[in-house]
Amino acid sequence: MINTDTLNIDAMDFTDMELEEIQHLAQQLLAERKYSLIRQILSNLNAADVALLFDEMDKKDIPLLYRLLPKEEAAECFSYMSRDMQKTLINTLTDRELRAVMDDIFLDDTVDMIEEMPANVVARILRNTDEETRKIINQLLNYPKDSAGSLMTIEYVNIKKDMTVGAAISRIRKTAVDKETIYTCYVTENRKLIGMVSVKDLLMAEDSMQIEDIMETNVIHVDTHEDKEDVAKIFNKYDFLAIPVVDREERLVGIVTFDDAMDVMQEEHTEDMAKMAAIMPTDDSYFNTSSFSHAKSRISWLLFLMLSATVSGSIITHYQETFKLYPLLVSFIPMLTGTGGNCGSQSSTLMIRGLALDEIKFRDIFKVIFKEFRIALFVSIILAFVNGLRIFIQYGDLQIAIVIALALVVIVILSKFIGCTLPLVAEHIGLDPALMAAPLISTIVDICSILIYFQIATILLHISV
Amino acid sequence: MINTDTLNIDAMDFTDMELEEIQHLAQQLLAERKYSLIRQILSNLNAADVALLFDEMDKKDIPLLYRLLPKEEAAECFSYMSRDMQKTLINTLTDRELRAVMDDIFLDDTVDMIEEMPANVVARILRNTDEETRKIINQLLNYPKDSAGSLMTIEYVNIKKDMTVGAAISRIRKTAVDKETIYTCYVTENRKLIGMVSVKDLLMAEDSMQIEDIMETNVIHVDTHEDKEDVAKIFNKYDFLAIPVVDREERLVGIVTFDDAMDVMQEEHTEDMAKMAAIMPTDDSYFNTSSFSHAKSRISWLLFLMLSATVSGSIITHYQETFKLYPLLVSFIPMLTGTGGNCGSQSSTLMIRGLALDEIKFRDIFKVIFKEFRIALFVSIILAFVNGLRIFIQYGDLQIAIVIALALVVIVILSKFIGCTLPLVAEHIGLDPALMAAPLISTIVDICSILIYFQIATILLHISV
Repeated sequence: MINTDTLNIDAMDFTDMELEEIQHLAQQLLAERKYSLIRQILSNLNAADVALLFDEMDKKDIPLLYRLLPKEEAAECFSYMSRDMQKTLINTLTDRELRAVMDDIFLDDTVDMIEEMPANVVARILRNTDEETRKIINQLLNYPKDSAGSLMTIEYVNIKKDMTVGAAISRIRKTAVDKETIYTCYVTENRKLIGMVSVKDLLMAEDSMQIEDIMETNVIHVDTHEDKEDVAKIFNKYDFLAIPVVDREERLVGIVTFDDAMDVMQEEHTEDMAKMAAIMPTDDSYFNTSSFSHAKSRISWLLFLMLSATVSGSIITHYQETFKLYPLLVSFIPMLTGTGGNCGSQSSTLMIRGLALDEIKFRDIFKVIFKEFRIALFVSIILAFVNGLRIFIQYGDLQIAIVIALALVVIVILSKFIGCTLPLVAEHIGLDPALMAAPLISTIVDICSILIYFQIATILLHISV
Repeated sequence: MINTDTLNIDAMDFTDMELEEIQHLAQQLLAERKYSLIRQILSNLNAADVALLFDEMDKKDIPLLYRLLPKEEAAECFSYMSRDMQKTLINTLTDRELRAVMDDIFLDDTVDMIEEMPANVVARILRNTDEETRKIINQLLNYPKDSAGSLMTIEYVNIKKDMTVGAAISRIRKTAVDKETIYTCYVTENRKLIGMVSVKDLLMAEDSMQIEDIMETNVIHVDTHEDKEDVAKIFNKYDFLAIPVVDREERLVGIVTFDDAMDVMQEEHTEDMAKMAAIMPTDDSYFNTSSFSHAKSRISWLLFLMLSATVSGSIITHYQETFKLYPLLVSFIPMLTGTGGNCGSQSSTLMIRGLALDEIKFRDIFKVIFKEFRIALFVSIILAFVNGLRIFIQYGDLQIAIVIALALVVIVILSKFIGCTLPLVAEHIGLDPALMAAPLISTIVDICSILIYFQIATILLHISV
């Protein structure tokens, strides 16, 4: 317990404190009804941290805590909250309080929220926004889910080419409070995007200069229907703070800001990893997804891969006579299929990542195959030598050692070939290359490995099947 | 061929053109020696695109092309170039030209470059920077490779708390040209960081106000030794444009900007994917890495996993009598180990991603195990039912069907347990959880699956081993 009577909040450095400590302090102050101290703490925290703190607090204290937030921080903090917390709040705030929040949060955040809320909550949100905003929200909701249009905000700074720098700066000073970013200003003519000026350029120019003379033309922009993953790539390439979004008539309709692009990058990465592990991606975090939904997102690929693996089974059955004569052969199956699978997924992972980063393209396929072939040669000779030697020493059977070594060389070369071509082909025919990852590659490679292995064994050991 | 006599470059929209078209045009203009047209094209392109264009052009034309670049764009474009291209240029530029570049590019980019260049190139770079810059470069080079210190730039805007807003704005206007970002200004007192003001705040305030009254205290900052991955996470959480870096005495020594954080996120993602595919990460892109280096980065894990797989082999040998009596049993090995491996890597992938996003922590381990257990139950019952039924229909052998179904249930539950605990434990003991991905998990799960399978078969089929 802290003695809260002598607590000097302004002297505390919250950036050095753990969230948990702050949480305990807030709980104690709540119990002691020292609300003004809580308000002081909240106003000293970054909005993102306040949102995290809310997640840790007792649900029944949330409405009170929210009302203790300084008014100008309330909306920003609201945008950082989890959907669950937002739902709780919307259900407990009065209409007037809700209207205040809706007036202050940025439109793109409102739209994201509406997309994921149940109908009754959406109804309450829409009831508490004004006519005009509601119209814009409906427009934004009409863009495809993963498009630039659904990601953008319409709150940007718009200037004209015949303004002076001084006039532009004072326009920014007057309207800044409502804009998500003021640092890039867009120049339009008849609503068409004709140029761009950064605040840095404005500040470095003389007040009397014309915007037209300092603006950049040839502004890189995206279409409302552009995929959000491609939008994120543009940010990564050019280090922009924001990118303008235009409609089919090249009219400026909104901007996407870098923080949304960073979120997209993270989400896409999470989605790719899920797909690469044979999981259908879900939108929610691990703990927010129910066990049943988890099971549902995992079962379809597992079923498909399990049934595909019966092909390997039939091949093994076909070679029954071989391993009845040499039971030792069976014991090498997991090692061979495992090594093949690992080699294949090494190659496929590098392809999937290279494609995502635009470092590798389908037209490079022959270059890739040749490179992977040389790598496979190096790797397979080492693996074959080490394992052949081990088997010869352990079992003293040169024939088996040669069979395994030879099988390893062929399997490694073939799996690297499969691993590098499938993602490239998938991309080329419009499939997601991330699906051509370890699970599928291993299953395909398993089948090939077993076939190669028994074929080599049958021939070298002179067995008739 | 384009008729270049009537070409009106200012009327062209380069944002709608493919890089290849621009490249062909530039090559044609080079051949026709129409250098002023090339200069016009280059000045209409974004610096990042010029850098890409350079990569596509003939090496012998590079020095000429570089000299055609508008002076103010040359340095920015240089920072976007690949290391190879930078090396080529440094070797062809005169000392005077090189000095001009070094004066203009941001210090953090110089340091990154120096870290990756061969000694003779570094010597030339250092010879062409002034005494003071050289000192700072040496300081920055002393920070650990993956630390905030090595990522930061020292070119930020520094103001005092007793300045007025008007004075601060005119200070920014005067010094902006040399700063990497002007949009966040830091307030220091005796070199210690005491506050922060954004340019948006400055523009929204009255000119006569004191910085002290509008600055944010409690500035979130990082230490020079903080890992760059953690720095990137902070950007992701707070949507900052820049974050201040302080030394051990809390003195402000530099800032990290969001574009560097985005690059770190991408690099870390690439590195994680490589590790998860049993590849030692390399810094270069796929094609810039030689086949030999690729082989080297892949062989160690392959060797280790191959030799570990001999354990599964010994287990199989141990149960020779079982499958001599029931050769059919062998044919289910790939299906069972494959399914186990897939189940295990589904869980481990979700853990690795959850840990990276801070959504899952080690203290959640029991919650995770319980959740994965329920998921495994759902999933395994479906898999066991489908495959048991298939086997019964195909072979008419109820006993074998039951053995496989039962083995599947136990294997799925155990692999999900292994898949979810290993990454959490790795994180807890300071290992990289990304190593506990598909390849290692599959190898471990293979061993367990085969043991479980033959144990169940031996018991249910009443075989004495």
